[in-house]
Amino acid sequence: MATTATYTVAGMTCGHCVSAVTGELAALPGVQAVEVDLIKGGASTVTVVSDTPLEADRVREAVDEAGYDLVDPS
Amino acid sequence: MATTATYTVAGMTCGHCVSAVTGELAALPGVQAVEVDLIKGGASTVTVVSDTPLEADRVREAVDEAGYDLVDPS
Repeated sequence: MATTATYTVAGMTCGHCVSAVTGELAALPGVQAVEVDLIKGGASTVTVVSDTPLEADRVREAVDEAGYDLVDPS
Repeated sequence: MATTATYTVAGMTCGHCVSAVTGELAALPGVQAVEVDLIKGGASTVTVVSDTPLEADRVREAVDEAGYDLVDPS
Protein backbone atom coordinates (compact mmCIF):
# COMPACT_ATOMS: atom_id res chain seq x y z
CA MET A 1 0.00 0.00 0.00
CA ALA A 2 1.26 3.49 -0.80
CA THR A 3 2.25 6.05 1.79
CA THR A 4 1.25 9.72 1.65
CA ALA A 5 3.27 12.39 3.45
CA THR A 6 2.94 16.16 3.53
CA TYR A 7 5.81 18.62 3.79
CA THR A 8 6.15 22.37 3.99
CA VAL A 9 8.55 24.11 1.63
CA ALA A 10 9.52 27.77 1.89
CA GLY A 11 10.54 30.25 -0.79
CA MET A 12 8.72 29.02 -3.87
CA THR A 13 7.29 31.86 -5.93
CA CYS A 14 6.11 30.57 -9.30
CA GLY A 15 5.29 27.65 -11.52
CA HIS A 16 8.94 27.17 -12.38
CA CYS A 17 9.66 26.67 -8.68
CA VAL A 18 6.88 24.09 -8.53
CA SER A 19 8.41 22.26 -11.50
CA ALA A 20 11.85 22.26 -9.92
CA VAL A 21 10.67 20.83 -6.60
CA THR A 22 8.30 18.35 -8.23
CA GLY A 23 11.06 17.12 -10.52
CA GLU A 24 13.54 16.52 -7.71
CA LEU A 25 11.03 14.76 -5.47
CA ALA A 26 9.61 12.66 -8.30
CA ALA A 27 13.15 11.38 -8.96
CA LEU A 28 13.42 9.82 -5.49
CA PRO A 29 13.15 6.01 -5.54
CA GLY A 30 9.62 4.78 -4.88
CA VAL A 31 7.86 8.10 -5.37
CA GLN A 32 4.58 7.69 -7.25
CA ALA A 33 3.16 11.21 -7.19
CA VAL A 34 3.98 14.74 -6.07
CA GLU A 35 1.47 17.54 -5.62
CA VAL A 36 2.36 21.13 -4.73
CA ASP A 37 -0.03 23.71 -3.31
CA LEU A 38 1.89 26.90 -4.06
CA ILE A 39 1.75 29.75 -1.57
CA LYS A 40 3.83 32.38 -3.37
CA GLY A 41 6.78 33.41 -1.24
CA GLY A 42 5.27 31.67 1.77
CA ALA A 43 4.92 28.16 3.11
CA SER A 44 3.85 25.87 0.28
CA THR A 45 2.45 22.43 0.98
CA VAL A 46 3.97 19.49 -0.87
CA THR A 47 2.26 16.09 -0.81
CA VAL A 48 4.25 13.04 -1.81
CA VAL A 49 2.88 9.55 -2.44
CA SER A 50 5.47 6.79 -2.28
CA ASP A 51 5.69 3.00 -2.16
CA THR A 52 7.14 3.09 1.35
CA PRO A 53 7.75 5.97 3.80
CA LEU A 54 10.57 8.25 2.64
CA GLU A 55 13.52 9.14 4.84
CA ALA A 56 13.26 12.77 5.90
CA ASP A 57 16.88 13.42 4.93
CA ARG A 58 16.25 12.26 1.35
CA VAL A 59 13.27 14.61 1.08
CA ARG A 60 15.26 17.47 2.58
CA GLU A 61 18.12 16.88 0.14
CA ALA A 62 15.76 16.82 -2.85
CA VAL A 63 14.08 20.08 -1.84
CA ASP A 64 17.48 21.65 -1.18
CA GLU A 65 18.73 20.46 -4.57
CA ALA A 66 15.81 22.30 -6.20
CA GLY A 67 16.92 25.44 -4.38
CA TYR A 68 14.37 25.64 -1.57
CA ASP A 69 14.09 24.89 2.13
CA LEU A 70 12.11 22.18 3.84
CA VAL A 71 10.41 23.65 6.91
CA ASP A 72 10.50 21.46 10.01
CA PRO A 73 7.11 20.61 11.50
CA SER A 74 6.46 22.87 14.48
CA MET B 1 27.54 48.85 -34.26
CA ALA B 2 25.30 47.13 -31.75
CA THR B 3 22.07 48.57 -30.39
CA THR B 4 21.08 48.50 -26.74
CA ALA B 5 17.45 48.76 -25.65
CA THR B 6 15.82 48.55 -22.25
CA TYR B 7 12.39 47.07 -21.54
CA THR B 8 10.21 46.63 -18.48
CA VAL B 9 8.75 43.21 -17.76
CA ALA B 10 6.13 42.53 -15.09
CA GLY B 11 5.45 39.46 -13.00
CA MET B 12 8.87 37.83 -12.74
CA THR B 13 9.51 36.40 -9.29
CA CYS B 14 12.61 34.23 -9.31
CA GLY B 15 15.69 33.05 -11.11
CA HIS B 16 13.67 30.56 -13.13
CA CYS B 17 11.62 33.46 -14.48
CA VAL B 18 14.83 35.26 -15.42
CA SER B 19 16.05 32.16 -17.27
CA ALA B 20 12.76 31.84 -19.16
CA VAL B 21 12.74 35.47 -20.34
CA THR B 22 16.45 35.49 -21.11
CA GLY B 23 16.15 32.33 -23.15
CA GLU B 24 13.27 33.59 -25.28
CA LEU B 25 14.90 36.97 -25.95
CA ALA B 26 18.31 35.46 -26.65
CA ALA B 27 16.67 33.32 -29.35
CA LEU B 28 15.58 36.37 -31.36
CA PRO B 29 17.65 36.92 -34.53
CA GLY B 30 20.50 39.36 -34.00
CA VAL B 31 20.40 39.39 -30.21
CA GLN B 32 23.89 39.45 -28.72
CA ALA B 33 23.20 39.75 -25.00
CA VAL B 34 20.34 39.90 -22.51
CA GLU B 35 20.59 41.19 -18.95
CA VAL B 36 17.78 41.11 -16.41
CA ASP B 37 17.58 43.21 -13.26
CA LEU B 38 14.98 41.25 -11.30
CA ILE B 39 12.51 43.12 -9.13
CA LYS B 40 10.56 40.26 -7.58
CA GLY B 41 6.88 40.52 -8.43
CA GLY B 42 7.37 44.06 -9.67
CA ALA B 43 8.72 45.82 -12.74
CA SER B 44 11.97 44.16 -13.77
CA THR B 45 14.34 45.84 -16.20
CA VAL B 46 15.54 43.84 -19.18
CA THR B 47 18.41 45.13 -21.31
CA VAL B 48 18.93 43.66 -24.77
CA VAL B 49 21.93 44.19 -27.02
CA SER B 50 21.31 43.39 -30.68
CA ASP B 51 22.93 43.82 -34.07
CA THR B 52 20.15 46.13 -35.21
CA PRO B 53 17.13 47.62 -33.41
CA LEU B 54 14.51 44.98 -32.59
CA GLU B 55 10.88 45.31 -33.56
CA ALA B 56 8.79 45.94 -30.46
CA ASP B 57 6.30 43.25 -31.47
CA ARG B 58 9.03 40.61 -31.64
CA VAL B 59 10.19 41.54 -28.14
CA ARG B 60 6.63 41.53 -26.84
CA GLU B 61 6.02 38.09 -28.34
CA ALA B 62 9.20 36.68 -26.82
CA VAL B 63 8.34 37.98 -23.36
CA ASP B 64 4.79 36.70 -23.72
CA GLU B 65 6.09 33.30 -24.82
CA ALA B 66 8.10 33.12 -21.59
CA GLY B 67 4.88 33.76 -19.68
CA TYR B 68 5.29 37.41 -18.71
CA ASP B 69 4.09 40.83 -19.80
CA LEU B 70 6.03 43.61 -21.45
CA VAL B 71 5.08 46.92 -19.83
CA ASP B 72 4.61 49.80 -22.28
CA PRO B 73 6.82 52.82 -21.61
CA SER B 74 4.78 55.49 -19.82
